[in-house]
Amino acid sequence: MTLAIGVDIAGTKIAAGVVDEAGLILASAYRPTDPDRPEAIEAAVADTVAELRRQYDVGVVGVAACGFVSPDRSTLLFAPNVAWRHHPLGARLADRIGLPVVVENDANAAAWAEYRFGHGQGVDDLVVLTLGTGLGGAVITGGRLVRGSFGAAAELGHIKIVPSGHHCGCGHEGCWEAYCSGTALAKAAQNRAVADPAGSEAMAGLAAGQPIAGEHVTGAARQGDPLALWLLARFGEFLGLGIATLAAVTDPGRVVVGGGIAAAAGDFILPTARQSYLAHLSGRGFRGELDIVTAALGNEAGLVGAADSARSA
Amino acid sequence: MTLAIGVDIAGTKIAAGVVDEAGLILASAYRPTDPDRPEAIEAAVADTVAELRRQYDVGVVGVAACGFVSPDRSTLLFAPNVAWRHHPLGARLADRIGLPVVVENDANAAAWAEYRFGHGQGVDDLVVLTLGTGLGGAVITGGRLVRGSFGAAAELGHIKIVPSGHHCGCGHEGCWEAYCSGTALAKAAQNRAVADPAGSEAMAGLAAGQPIAGEHVTGAARQGDPLALWLLARFGEFLGLGIATLAAVTDPGRVVVGGGIAAAAGDFILPTARQSYLAHLSGRGFRGELDIVTAALGNEAGLVGAADSARSA
Amino acid sequence: MTLAIGVDIAGTKIAAGVVDEAGLILASAYRPTDPDRPEAIEAAVADTVAELRRQYDVGVVGVAACGFVSPDRSTLLFAPNVAWRHHPLGARLADRIGLPVVVENDANAAAWAEYRFGHGQGVDDLVVLTLGTGLGGAVITGGRLVRGSFGAAAELGHIKIVPSGHHCGCGHEGCWEAYCSGTALAKAAQNRAVADPAGSEAMAGLAAGQPIAGEHVTGAARQGDPLALWLLARFGEFLGLGIATLAAVTDPGRVVVGGGIAAAAGDFILPTARQSYLAHLSGRGFRGELDIVTAALGNEAGLVGAADSARSA
Amino acid sequence: MTLAIGVDIAGTKIAAGVVDEAGLILASAYRPTDPDRPEAIEAAVADTVAELRRQYDVGVVGVAACGFVSPDRSTLLFAPNVAWRHHPLGARLADRIGLPVVVENDANAAAWAEYRFGHGQGVDDLVVLTLGTGLGGAVITGGRLVRGSFGAAAELGHIKIVPSGHHCGCGHEGCWEAYCSGTALAKAAQNRAVADPAGSEAMAGLAAGQPIAGEHVTGAARQGDPLALWLLARFGEFLGLGIATLAAVTDPGRVVVGGGIAAAAGDFILPTARQSYLAHLSGRGFRGELDIVTAALGNEAGLVGAADSARSA
Repeated sequence: MTLAIGVDIAGTKIAAGVVDEAGLILASAYRPTDPDRPEAIEAAVADTVAELRRQYDVGVVGVAACGFVSPDRSTLLFAPNVAWRHHPLGARLADRIGLPVVVENDANAAAWAEYRFGHGQGVDDLVVLTLGTGLGGAVITGGRLVRGSFGAAAELGHIKIVPSGHHCGCGHEGCWEAYCSGTALAKAAQNRAVADPAGSEAMAGLAAGQPIAGEHVTGAARQGDPLALWLLARFGEFLGLGIATLAAVTDPGRVVVGGGIAAAAGDFILPTARQSYLAHLSGRGFRGELDIVTAALGNEAGLVGAADSARSA
Repeated sequence: MTLAIGVDIAGTKIAAGVVDEAGLILASAYRPTDPDRPEAIEAAVADTVAELRRQYDVGVVGVAACGFVSPDRSTLLFAPNVAWRHHPLGARLADRIGLPVVVENDANAAAWAEYRFGHGQGVDDLVVLTLGTGLGGAVITGGRLVRGSFGAAAELGHIKIVPSGHHCGCGHEGCWEAYCSGTALAKAAQNRAVADPAGSEAMAGLAAGQPIAGEHVTGAARQGDPLALWLLARFGEFLGLGIATLAAVTDPGRVVVGGGIAAAAGDFILPTARQSYLAHLSGRGFRGELDIVTAALGNEAGLVGAADSARSA
Repeated sequence: MTLAIGVDIAGTKIAAGVVDEAGLILASAYRPTDPDRPEAIEAAVADTVAELRRQYDVGVVGVAACGFVSPDRSTLLFAPNVAWRHHPLGARLADRIGLPVVVENDANAAAWAEYRFGHGQGVDDLVVLTLGTGLGGAVITGGRLVRGSFGAAAELGHIKIVPSGHHCGCGHEGCWEAYCSGTALAKAAQNRAVADPAGSEAMAGLAAGQPIAGEHVTGAARQGDPLALWLLARFGEFLGLGIATLAAVTDPGRVVVGGGIAAAAGDFILPTARQSYLAHLSGRGFRGELDIVTAALGNEAGLVGAADSARSA
Repeated sequence: MTLAIGVDIAGTKIAAGVVDEAGLILASAYRPTDPDRPEAIEAAVADTVAELRRQYDVGVVGVAACGFVSPDRSTLLFAPNVAWRHHPLGARLADRIGLPVVVENDANAAAWAEYRFGHGQGVDDLVVLTLGTGLGGAVITGGRLVRGSFGAAAELGHIKIVPSGHHCGCGHEGCWEAYCSGTALAKAAQNRAVADPAGSEAMAGLAAGQPIAGEHVTGAARQGDPLALWLLARFGEFLGLGIATLAAVTDPGRVVVGGGIAAAAGDFILPTARQSYLAHLSGRGFRGELDIVTAALGNEAGLVGAADSARSA
């Protein structure tokens, strides 16, 4: 049995693990990191790998990192949080570690884990969406991750869904993420509180003087608050609209939805998203219809997927 | 050298050809067809193949047809123009012909030819758009055609770009095709003629009493008519908007644009589409940028791509 | 008591009546007309007036006609159905009749009747909407009809509500009428029948092979059909959106909704419109809120309003 | 000749003046104010009036204040900056002053001055827009200010122009003000700086490390910067779109545009707005077309209009 180490470089910590061919984590190691000290991140990765190799014999290392990764999975073309620009992260880590190192975009890595070991198993044309602060994701076609010509595939949050629509953090208007993300949900709730103070008392009450956040919307919805339910329904409608566009591009058989919003409010959002997807699906009745499910894996998905993806490189 | 026969089943005729590994057509055969007589279509395909095999020794037959094709490329799940529903076209033709037969969606086949022998060569992440009466296309990722879970990938004309927007022939609103196609261009021009009769005299003059069609828009634009130029610029802007969404999904390195509108008005539309794509591209400056070019191949692209795709099956 | 004659010049007939100060019609006269023979229309108007004057002593005649009327209410600047362009209809009729003649836009005349004698009584800032084949209306501010600088006020169907939205018969995109009118409702239903044949069986069944019309939508809604109910809810949502815009311009205290759609489906549409208006109303909680009611008067509203408006000139 | 005193209660100061029938200010008086001390504001108003009455004999006082004013022009129903709710400001000031006092919304007052003495003279159906931090305005029909049923007419910034569009400060989406105001312009520029850092260097250079503001956009436009020019053109396009909606409601003969943005960038914005208005105008060719001009009056418009409006009460 071939073991691989997966390493997930997140904003403030590194998580590493030895992953077997069934996707199980046999051992783990963690290190805090500082995104302002890129050199130290590489040392910390090497350090966790060395720690794990004392226990297990592994043949390859997969590293998941946030950013655009070169199609050959060696170079971090651009990282939003670390000062890496066209940075040969794979080669530098391989030098330190003495094993082959494969670099993968973190959303891709997590999606790969979901495809191989989670709720995407057996669906060779798959989309994984992550509804967190933003809206991220990954696309698998024919059983392979789509990485794109510039390592920038599956920037799904930036599908354009409303011309001249909401401002997005990317500087553009009408991006999917500006309607379907934790940030968007909180902003929508805060705006409704201005537009309709009486109607938003339930959410405002839960927020207790703080700006209304996604959790307050979800909490109020669980109490049956009409405005909170309306906000989540609207979220689901826009989610389904974007999924209909994805269906028109890569025709996935399933969409797996993970991330904090999916965990907290998936039971509200996903049925509406499915209805909305069907309402916007061209060719309905003449083609198959995808299903929308929650993700199976949690925070370890990134390191598991990085390890498994590296093994199959 | 392995030869393959490609057959393109179009609305009113069948075109077949022997295709070599360089994409050259060594011999051709044609038959008229009637979409209302599906059985006769199969007989005619077999007949053209038999005719060509008298001259050349071939190992495989690729058939391009309009419709949704099963991921294993054997069954026509749904054809819009012929009464084929879950029809085992590949097996039936193989029985008649005595050679392996691979079925491919016609837009996919044409795109594959463009990738292998045309203006998409070397670009493993590619999108091919066909701007004709409608807006069709194909998506290639990692050097492979994306067919989708239900054979319905790359229904690119039905990407949703304007909520509550123009009615589309598919029954939905705001589809890309309802803004970027020959039908959409003609309709936009006809509407401007109602809204602004004085401003549309140049186009109306070319139309000479008939409804304004795409060719009249293009003709007036070549004469410098401001409204016609505005219509084509707007077409290009919506084209670029959709391409920005495609960039967010599969990150192609190039978009090849074919079809009648591209041939007639590509010099007006494509530069605007490129500007619009850049204006809507999230992550600009941190990622590579695709180029937009016209297609190299003409009407034979379908049969050439079907043959070549079948050979590599 | 001062009596006035009101004349409503409609597409194929003229209706005239003697109207008292309570808005009651004391006597009526009708004539068929041919819009292609403008001269004959004037003669027929004079004829009906003569007939009525044999019975009653009247001091003024008010004429309601479809088109743009000059602010001094004498000239028909433009009529869509009759070849009148800057036509001094008032003076010509006064010559024939020997009484003062005041010309009023037909929607304005009907709205005036609703304000004076119908469901708009006492509401000096009023909007009247007519939901028929198209969407027409009239605006009253401070107890006076708004006629505009060019006699083109209250072309309410052409408020722009969706950029790049549905094509409108006027040649523009996204007009209110392209979402809220009988034509729009039928088109939306016909499109849903393409997009979702299974879901639209109830409406299609009522249409019995004909194109689905507004009455089939309403009929299916009365049977509880989900798609028909969804179409009418959507109609109401767009209706409320436009009313929120009207509230931002003239701040009416009430919107009276008449016309065939209001009569047939007002119970479905108006409550949703009210919810939608409130959901889009800026300043809610700090300002009064209008109500939305059905019209009181029927087909005679035009002649009654023309008479009464002329009397108060 | 009848003189009137006009008082403009602004955020941090009171400006008062004696206004003659030609709109000339014969004498002025100013006081600082604190919006948190409403009682002191009333005392200060009375104080300025007393000061001016020592010099001139006046018959009436007009007071301009920000907020919703009752249709009888006596009560401030809601003020956004001062804690006045259903506050009988007119009666309380009349008690203090011993003269009739008429209260007018400040935008209405300024528009009235523009109608009577500025660039709106002779245009009885007029719209005045104020492009400042927000987008305000006033509507005149038939030579009379439209105040509305709830004193909330002419909240023009909250006309809805883009469904699911930009968030507005009012808590709603897609309001005109969210596209056409100083705040909107600055936000659009700041977003373009994120989306296209290279293209926004000229504006960023003028901003010198601060967030890009409207003045930097205008400054860069004067230097020929393409992105700044594009931003102002887009502003003008949305301005014209909203004006087309106003044309469909009250059919003004002219739109007078004032405020800081109009003063700074009117030469860029207004011609584009006019083109856009014409491009969206239903019935073009069959109706008159309004013109769009800059305002004649400056900061004194409010007090002049309040005085004149009070005189004609």
